[in-house]
Amino acid sequence: MTKKVLITGGAGFIGSHLAKMLLAKEYEVTVMDNLFTGTKTNIYEMLDNHRFTFILHDVTQPFWGQFDLIYNLACPASPIHYQRNPVETIKTSLLGMMNVLELALKTKARVFHTSTSEIYGDPEVHPQPESYWGNVNTIGTRSCYDEGKRAAETLCADYLREYNVDVRMIRIFNTYGPNMHPKDGRVISNFIMQALQNRDLTIYGDGSQTRSFQYVTDLTEAMVAFMDLEKRTMMEFFKSRGMDIPILNVGNPEEFTIKQLAEETLRQIPESKSSIIYQTLPKDDPRRRKPDITLVNDLLGWKPAVPLQEGIKNAIAYFKGTNLRL
Amino acid sequence: MTKKVLITGGAGFIGSHLAKMLLAKEYEVTVMDNLFTGTKTNIYEMLDNHRFTFILHDVTQPFWGQFDLIYNLACPASPIHYQRNPVETIKTSLLGMMNVLELALKTKARVFHTSTSEIYGDPEVHPQPESYWGNVNTIGTRSCYDEGKRAAETLCADYLREYNVDVRMIRIFNTYGPNMHPKDGRVISNFIMQALQNRDLTIYGDGSQTRSFQYVTDLTEAMVAFMDLEKRTMMEFFKSRGMDIPILNVGNPEEFTIKQLAEETLRQIPESKSSIIYQTLPKDDPRRRKPDITLVNDLLGWKPAVPLQEGIKNAIAYFKGTNLRL
Repeated sequence: MTKKVLITGGAGFIGSHLAKMLLAKEYEVTVMDNLFTGTKTNIYEMLDNHRFTFILHDVTQPFWGQFDLIYNLACPASPIHYQRNPVETIKTSLLGMMNVLELALKTKARVFHTSTSEIYGDPEVHPQPESYWGNVNTIGTRSCYDEGKRAAETLCADYLREYNVDVRMIRIFNTYGPNMHPKDGRVISNFIMQALQNRDLTIYGDGSQTRSFQYVTDLTEAMVAFMDLEKRTMMEFFKSRGMDIPILNVGNPEEFTIKQLAEETLRQIPESKSSIIYQTLPKDDPRRRKPDITLVNDLLGWKPAVPLQEGIKNAIAYFKGTNLRL
Repeated sequence: MTKKVLITGGAGFIGSHLAKMLLAKEYEVTVMDNLFTGTKTNIYEMLDNHRFTFILHDVTQPFWGQFDLIYNLACPASPIHYQRNPVETIKTSLLGMMNVLELALKTKARVFHTSTSEIYGDPEVHPQPESYWGNVNTIGTRSCYDEGKRAAETLCADYLREYNVDVRMIRIFNTYGPNMHPKDGRVISNFIMQALQNRDLTIYGDGSQTRSFQYVTDLTEAMVAFMDLEKRTMMEFFKSRGMDIPILNVGNPEEFTIKQLAEETLRQIPESKSSIIYQTLPKDDPRRRKPDITLVNDLLGWKPAVPLQEGIKNAIAYFKGTNLRL
């Protein structure tokens, strides 16, 4: 029987790639989105697929439906978006998670929750394994996202332990690709937009700070493979690692300097009149993080497949197709 | 005009002391409690006071009322209670906090939130100042309490920043005294109950591990003094310390070894036939924490006043008056 899937936040960057991948795998896909940061454009090509349904709904409000799998992706994820309305951001994480888990409990659906490397905060351990507890400020301006996501993990863990809900979580590290919001304020979209609009590429600091970037389909491959696993086998794997909660880091551990990224962007947009300029590092600079991906590799045989060069090429092609004054 | 106060969790250990103190200060006091860990006995002596009202209500469900001050204390606080129903525990923290903050936003009430030293988790900094971010596991068996309380702090901070709700928070360290639940499973109540029932006092490990203990009225004095401060003055104090969110540690920094505590308990119950026995330290041993109380001392001139000897005496008198097989 065709499996029914719900994707909350499915009109967003990652959700729309996931929806496309699941449709290609013959699932029946329902996307729920409030279109706050997600867009109809991201799912436009799927709208006429008879196995696809779109629901305009906010995940913080209760909802009902019979699904085999629920992927919970709803939450603004870039500081520029989530700091616009911190209260709604943390409510989306918390109430959205509660609504998903309650629905799963009552309908026996399997739940995937997208956690984030942000739960590691400003890490004192590098790279970060899943066993690292993180270093997060509870009352700072990023906390609405970080603490919302931390408590959402706790909710998942507790619904699993107390009610045996079949939950799986991935802590997603820095991800990029087509369907990113052109104004999400993160470095890859900033650089590409600047280069395409012939504005100078802004590097904060000397550009020697490193970041790791994961191409979006690498991530969605891992998500789908994780959700395909039979529960007992999966839990046994985690138990053999001394864990009672199924959670994986998924990201690309290869590091690039911000300067390398700027140079690669300009190399791929030879018509750009932009140069690279340097500015003072702001106080709230995004923090350096790099995943330890031993666990996901051991469980799924997964590792990133798309090199930065190729991923950037696809992202540039996507941004060229968007209205650049968006 | 008499000020109207709501205390969520007001039939609990700390809440009942706070209610009594506020009644003595001529406030109109409404206690809301679902009586999960709180008891009618704790507020029995106040029931016939014409300035006192009791509402049987669960803070996770919306409620309404016009109050000048709201003290949010509702949440099971001892591992033995909160681990009985982890999902309800974290929901109490999160939904309770949201309901309180929404009510405060609409009615312009001032909000006091009881946070906890548990948000510091297993601290790597000792003693802990308010600026320490903590070391907490998101997916462990204590997380329902720790992460629920962390995200509740975040909600408070965000309602203050985004909507200017007048919020104040205290991170409460280990507190004891009359009205503690005799079976809350924490060391002071364990020792007193064991001694009164002529069962041996159980020390885990060699008893050289230290703890700090705050007498409950020391805490409630600080809570009331903090809530009495005019907003502008209070915010200026925090700004002068580089903080934009009003939060204080309140606890007793004096440390005792577990062995000293056991000995003091037996000294005060000379009729007890109990001895001290030693058992292996369990894996999930409560963690050592000690507050840095510089900030609360600077702001309120507050420091603990009740010595352990006197506090233990009062606690013993209380436990003697309860039904010991409770």
